Amino acid sequence: MPGMEGAPPRGFTDAEYEARLNRAHRAMSDAGLDALLLTTEADIAYLSGFRTPFWQSPTRPWYLAVPKSGKPIAVIPEIGAACMARGWVEDIRTWPSPHPTDDGVSLLYATLEACAGSGGRVGVPMARETHLRMPVIAFDALRHALEITDATAVLRDLRMVKSPLEIAKIAYVCGRVSDSFDRAPDLFAEGQPDTETFRAFKIECLRQGVDDISYLVGGAGPGGYGDIISPPSGRPLQRGDVLILDTGCVYDGYFCDFDRNFAFGQAGDTARRAYDTVYRATEAGLAAARPGATCADLFKAMQAVLEAGGALGNAVGRLGHGLGSELTEPPSHAPFDDTVLAPGMVITLEPGMAFAPGRNMVHEENIVIREDGPELLSRRAAPELPVIG
Amino acid sequence: MPGMEGAPPRGFTDAEYEARLNRAHRAMSDAGLDALLLTTEADIAYLSGFRTPFWQSPTRPWYLAVPKSGKPIAVIPEIGAACMARGWVEDIRTWPSPHPTDDGVSLLYATLEACAGSGGRVGVPMARETHLRMPVIAFDALRHALEITDATAVLRDLRMVKSPLEIAKIAYVCGRVSDSFDRAPDLFAEGQPDTETFRAFKIECLRQGVDDISYLVGGAGPGGYGDIISPPSGRPLQRGDVLILDTGCVYDGYFCDFDRNFAFGQAGDTARRAYDTVYRATEAGLAAARPGATCADLFKAMQAVLEAGGALGNAVGRLGHGLGSELTEPPSHAPFDDTVLAPGMVITLEPGMAFAPGRNMVHEENIVIREDGPELLSRRAAPELPVIG
Repeated sequence: MPGMEGAPPRGFTDAEYEARLNRAHRAMSDAGLDALLLTTEADIAYLSGFRTPFWQSPTRPWYLAVPKSGKPIAVIPEIGAACMARGWVEDIRTWPSPHPTDDGVSLLYATLEACAGSGGRVGVPMARETHLRMPVIAFDALRHALEITDATAVLRDLRMVKSPLEIAKIAYVCGRVSDSFDRAPDLFAEGQPDTETFRAFKIECLRQGVDDISYLVGGAGPGGYGDIISPPSGRPLQRGDVLILDTGCVYDGYFCDFDRNFAFGQAGDTARRAYDTVYRATEAGLAAARPGATCADLFKAMQAVLEAGGALGNAVGRLGHGLGSELTEPPSHAPFDDTVLAPGMVITLEPGMAFAPGRNMVHEENIVIREDGPELLSRRAAPELPVIG
Repeated sequence: MPGMEGAPPRGFTDAEYEARLNRAHRAMSDAGLDALLLTTEADIAYLSGFRTPFWQSPTRPWYLAVPKSGKPIAVIPEIGAACMARGWVEDIRTWPSPHPTDDGVSLLYATLEACAGSGGRVGVPMARETHLRMPVIAFDALRHALEITDATAVLRDLRMVKSPLEIAKIAYVCGRVSDSFDRAPDLFAEGQPDTETFRAFKIECLRQGVDDISYLVGGAGPGGYGDIISPPSGRPLQRGDVLILDTGCVYDGYFCDFDRNFAFGQAGDTARRAYDTVYRATEAGLAAARPGATCADLFKAMQAVLEAGGALGNAVGRLGHGLGSELTEPPSHAPFDDTVLAPGMVITLEPGMAFAPGRNMVHEENIVIREDGPELLSRRAAPELPVIG
C-alpha cells in the first residue's frame, strides 16, 4: 500500500486524556457544573478514547458521566465493555442491553446522582448544532430527578483547539486524499457512470491509506453542477461536464473535508471564470486566517471576492467551518460567528457560489491556524480548472 | 466491476411511497395522531426518499412533518433543497442554516401547527431504541407550544415488514458481501496487520458492488477473539488465530449485517467445536423462523443449542435483530420480545457465545421471512471453521 509510511500512531497517550480532562474540569467549574453527561460518539471519544464503528447501530444508548473531579465513568451496554477497556476509562459500568423496561437509565441515574451530589447540576449539550443520543423518554426521567442544564459551550470550547496529535491525524488523512485526487486523470473518464466514478475514488482513498470514506458527495452537469450533497445518480459523465467530489475520509477517528472540481474534455469560459473567482476567494480566506481574526472576518474576506465575481447566492449558509472528529464542527465562517481564531484550530475554507441558475462552484481547503498564519493540510487545488481527457 | 449486473434499480416508485404513506395514515389514525415529526435519516428517508451522505454533518437539523392526510412536508436547510426535490416530497420549506438564533424551529412550529390543527397531537419517536436528531432546547420549545406524544410504535410497525424492492436491495448487498467473503483466502494471510485485513476486505466489497462499507468490526486472537465491536488494532494475524469480520455494507441505503470466521494455519479443537455449536444454533434458528413464531421462540431455539454446547454467556444481549435501512432495527431475538414473525420481515440470526474466558464465537446470517419459512439472503457460512493458509 502507498502512503502507510508516516501514518501517525493510533490512539492518544494517557497524558493527552489527562490534559483534556483537566481542561474539562476547569470549564465545568467556570460554568458551575457538578457533572457532565455525554451521549454522542465524538463527545464520548474525546474524554474516553472509546472508538467503535458500533455507533452505526441505533439500538443501544452509550453514556459517559464526567464528575467534577476524577476520571469519567462509562455507563454502557455489556457488549461494549471490552472495547471501552481498551481506552482510558477505568470505571466501566454495564447493563444487559437491549432491555425491555430499563435500558440503562437507572444505572445512569445512580451514577450521575453520585457524581453530582444532592442538588448538583448536570451539564448536557442541548443547544444549537447538538443532539442527544438517547431516547427522549429516558432523558425526561433523568430531568425529573436531576438538575440538568445546557453544556453546549463547554464541549464546543473543549474540542475546538486541536492537540498536535489530533492535527497529525487530520494532516495525514488530508495528505492521503490529496494523493487520491492527484490520480483523478487515471480514475475518471467521459462515459463513466458517476456511480463508478465514486466507487473508483473510494477504492483509491482506501489504497492510499484512509480507514473509511465516511462522506463522499458530488455532482456533475454540463458546465456546472446544481446540487452538492447528493449521492451519485448513475448518469454517465459527458464531455463538457463539470464534476465536484467532496469527501470526508477518516483516519483513526479524524476527518478531512475538502473537495475538488474537474472538467471533462473541455471547460467552458463561464465555469473557468467561476473556478478562478472561487480560487481567489480561497486565497483571500488564507490571507485572513490568522490568530485574532474572527470567523466573521474570514467570511467577509471570501464573500467580497465572490460578490465581485458575480455570485448569485450560496445555499450552503456559510463559507467553511471547524473540522476534527466530526465532519463539521463549530465554528462557522458566517457573519454571525465572532469566534476568534487561535493557534491549533483546524478549519475548512469553503467559498462557493451559484454562478448561473442551477450551476454552482464550490472550493474547499483544510487548514490549521498557526501563530504566524494558516498551514495548509490539504494540498492546494490547481489554480485553473483541471480538464480530464 | 464484478457483480454490477443484476443490481436492483435505485430509489423507489411513487406507488411505493404512496403505499407507505397510506399505511402511515392508518397507523396515525389508530394511534390518535394528527401529525408526525420525524428527525432521523431512516425515518425521513422512508417517507420522503431523501438520500444523502450529508447526515454525517451534525451541524444542521432536518425535519419531515407528516399530516394526517396528504403528503409529507420537508422542513430543511436550504443546502438540501435540490437533493430533497429528487425524492417524492413536493412541499419543501427551507431556511438558511446554520442560523444563530432560530435554526428552523419557528418554521417547523408553524408547519406542525398547521398540520395538526389547534390542540392536535403530534407524534414523535421517543421510546426505546430511538433518539431525536435535533437540539433538546429546540424540542423543548416545540413541546411548550404543541401537544407531543410518543410515536415509536407507529414507525417501528411501519418499517418492519419490507417491500419486494427493499428486500431486493438487501439481497443484492448480501450477495456482493457473500462474494467478497468467498475471496478471503486471496485477501487475508498470516503476518498481515489486521488494519490491512480490514482494508483489503473493504476494497473487495467496493469492487464487488456495494456503495459503502458503513460498518466493519472484528477481532482476532489465538484460538478465539475477545471483543466483537472494535476496529482493527494493527496486530498482525498469527498462526492459530481465529478472526471474525462482521460487516454492514450498504446498497442504495439498505444494509446487510453478517459475519464470517476464519482460522489461520490451523484450527484448534475448542474453536472448531464452538464453531460447530454456533453453526447448529443458526440451523435451529432457520428451522424456527416461520410466520407465526415469535422472536422469543427464535431466541429459545438458538439458545438451547448454545447452552447444550457449553456457552458461558453472551454479552450481545440478544441472538439477532431486524435489518433494513439501519444496521440494526427492531425486533430483537430475546426472551422479552414477543414480536410475531410475518412474511416480508428481514432479520438476522446471530447466535453467539463465550466458549472460554475471553474467547467468543459469533455467527450471523440474514434472512427474509416467507410464507413457507426463511429465505437466506446471505450465502450460508461453511459448516466447518474455514482454515486459511
